[in-house]
Amino acid sequence: MPTAPITFSVQSQRTGDSPISALIQQALSTPGLISFAAGLVDEPSLPVTETRDAAAALLSDPRTARAALQYGSTPGYRPLREKVLNLVCTADGITPEAIATTADEVLLTSGSQQLLYLLGEALCNPGDIVITEAPSYFVYHGVLASQGVRVLTVPMDAGGLDLTALEELLLRLEHTGELRKVRLIYTVDYFQNPTGLTLAAERRPQLLALAQRFSTDHRILILEDAAYRELRYGTEDLPSIKRYDTRNAFVIYTSTFSKPCAPGFRTGYALVPRELMQPLCNLKSNHDFGSSNLTQHLLDHLVGSGVYARQAEKVRAVYRKKKDCIVQALEQEFADWPAVQWTNPTGGFYVWLTLPPHLNAGPSGELVKRAVEQGVIYVPGAFAHVPDTFGETVRNNEIRLCFGIATEEQISEGIRRLRAACRGLEQPQAHAKPRECVTT
Amino acid sequence: MPTAPITFSVQSQRTGDSPISALIQQALSTPGLISFAAGLVDEPSLPVTETRDAAAALLSDPRTARAALQYGSTPGYRPLREKVLNLVCTADGITPEAIATTADEVLLTSGSQQLLYLLGEALCNPGDIVITEAPSYFVYHGVLASQGVRVLTVPMDAGGLDLTALEELLLRLEHTGELRKVRLIYTVDYFQNPTGLTLAAERRPQLLALAQRFSTDHRILILEDAAYRELRYGTEDLPSIKRYDTRNAFVIYTSTFSKPCAPGFRTGYALVPRELMQPLCNLKSNHDFGSSNLTQHLLDHLVGSGVYARQAEKVRAVYRKKKDCIVQALEQEFADWPAVQWTNPTGGFYVWLTLPPHLNAGPSGELVKRAVEQGVIYVPGAFAHVPDTFGETVRNNEIRLCFGIATEEQISEGIRRLRAACRGLEQPQAHAKPRECVTT
Repeated sequence: MPTAPITFSVQSQRTGDSPISALIQQALSTPGLISFAAGLVDEPSLPVTETRDAAAALLSDPRTARAALQYGSTPGYRPLREKVLNLVCTADGITPEAIATTADEVLLTSGSQQLLYLLGEALCNPGDIVITEAPSYFVYHGVLASQGVRVLTVPMDAGGLDLTALEELLLRLEHTGELRKVRLIYTVDYFQNPTGLTLAAERRPQLLALAQRFSTDHRILILEDAAYRELRYGTEDLPSIKRYDTRNAFVIYTSTFSKPCAPGFRTGYALVPRELMQPLCNLKSNHDFGSSNLTQHLLDHLVGSGVYARQAEKVRAVYRKKKDCIVQALEQEFADWPAVQWTNPTGGFYVWLTLPPHLNAGPSGELVKRAVEQGVIYVPGAFAHVPDTFGETVRNNEIRLCFGIATEEQISEGIRRLRAACRGLEQPQAHAKPRECVTT
Repeated sequence: MPTAPITFSVQSQRTGDSPISALIQQALSTPGLISFAAGLVDEPSLPVTETRDAAAALLSDPRTARAALQYGSTPGYRPLREKVLNLVCTADGITPEAIATTADEVLLTSGSQQLLYLLGEALCNPGDIVITEAPSYFVYHGVLASQGVRVLTVPMDAGGLDLTALEELLLRLEHTGELRKVRLIYTVDYFQNPTGLTLAAERRPQLLALAQRFSTDHRILILEDAAYRELRYGTEDLPSIKRYDTRNAFVIYTSTFSKPCAPGFRTGYALVPRELMQPLCNLKSNHDFGSSNLTQHLLDHLVGSGVYARQAEKVRAVYRKKKDCIVQALEQEFADWPAVQWTNPTGGFYVWLTLPPHLNAGPSGELVKRAVEQGVIYVPGAFAHVPDTFGETVRNNEIRLCFGIATEEQISEGIRRLRAACRGLEQPQAHAKPRECVTT
């Protein structure tokens, strides 16, 4: 007798595989392929000896070792939560009191990813709305789709999220009566994944003011994803949006130790409005009753000893050099093709490349196949846009280039290969009708 | 202007705090209190030097160190998944082929808790049914409540889950047309949390056969939570239910490194039917794209070097002694009160104490207050029962005693205090009407 089928939930049916996992699989099975796809970090600069020393110190004293090997608490190791709060406030040049926040409102999670997930669970019913940037972090779009949330997007310019467009969207939603469904405005406001763009300084308090203005019947919260903040190349840091949230009421600030330290610790953190803390902990308690206690104790050691600050400084220098390298390679390889444009980020490890509108760099386009033949892969920018109601993406001429893990040699060679993959595609084909670029 | 309120999701509103967190808070703020409440593990036996040595070895080689500090994969570190599969199959005296399972069907999670969560998400819509033991693991009941799942329970006897009662329940559901809503049968089949009871050997294939028999239109899966399996006191291990699932179609087997090794690693694992793997990974990818890579690499080292097996052996001896200690203390302290009964587990770290029916050991009863006054806390057994439709729990005369973290001295003294707390409550009060004990 054949076995009866497993019945999956509605949520499971809404939950797809990551759009780039097929690409990553291809990269793994193609030796010599240069990957600008997965957002992995630079490996030679990982804090190997630093972590070894911290582990030795932590585990040499049975008292500290046992505390690290026992169960932790759901919100996370308290001393690390205190240090995290101080890190964020120091970066913003304020005291925790200035944003009415204590370590009680700091949550440690399995990467900042888990915070994004938990927050959606806490706030959103199917059919609710989250506003994101266009383009935005595609994994988050996947989370929202899984949770049945409707995503509306707002275009960006060189200064990040376009606040005029956001205001227009909010006014339109107010007019249609859908404003009550808006739960969150999501922004990756430092060296954004995927574009590398940063929200301009003057827009930060303005964004908060917009959220406050439209929070008439219920609160519209801002989810500030500062995952790449520590990777600024320059010395000057921009104030967070959180910094202006003096009553700790509107902004959830989340970041991670993955980028400036090591992803293997799988530890992110968030500063959240007080009323959110208990609901988030209740959910997290059901998920895992707390992320890895051992790695939290290790990080507490690394932060407390000053090693973390030095590590972040070291990593910034690494990515600064890599960014110079990729921009130089792009300038060199694409010098003869001025229609191609790219961002020039001031931090992080993403560059966003815009090809002429006729060129299909999307997952089923010609370029991605040719690129693999040439030995290079990228993330089609289409993945970072929300498809229209027909499932189509209107922008297929964009590319996310991640230079996190590639060496400088690989970066130069990879861009050379990418240019080679484009040969012959520079001009619109007679039979190909160029698509118009439509913004949401 | 007052700030508008945050709107929480339906799921958030269904998600409560852990019932024992208030108790644990009380324990932390009351010096000298002996806790039989939280399911923490024995601390002196934690693998301190073993983990220190594994970390030193792993992190001394830049190649292995970088692999551990980089992002991992969503299903987890492949070599550890292979080792886990071998651990389970060796315990069952079979080859992986005998259960049609490869490392592709092994998932590493943030404790086995995360597997319970993900599985609910993958399978259950609100209103669906999961069948559990009565009493059962109360945190899982909280997960199911949060996910809107209806919990139906089946009583246990000395041989664990009562299969006749389960069959009656399934027949009744078939009759009422609700069988189609049953997604899972959940059993903690080794030294159960909270009772310490174990599913008898002959019931294991019978349980599988029952699930198969009632899987006519859709598959009713068995969630075998073997979290305490490694903590058997004797030398003989019972076969898992999974062992009989020769086509890898009906049983999800989950266990954890938390109990036999260290909770701080926050690493659990599961063997799952092939069709479940991708949906679970898709969900997990949204949660965290993989649990801590660093701790998975450490565990791989501990398992591969044979340290883990020795550690599990060591821990078994520790809990065996503690169990003898608690049973001896109970026999001594309650010798004059034969109406009180307790389980005598053959593994794990829970004893289930049943007081006479008139005695209210529940969270709002007299005993719990008196116990705190005497300097001891326990988990009211009521938490492990599903409340009736009025929110009432019909059994308030039971107690879960966890002897995981308490020392032998504390165990003896704690039981003495518990007995002292009972003084004067031995006989039904004239004004108190004894409740009848009703089974679901």
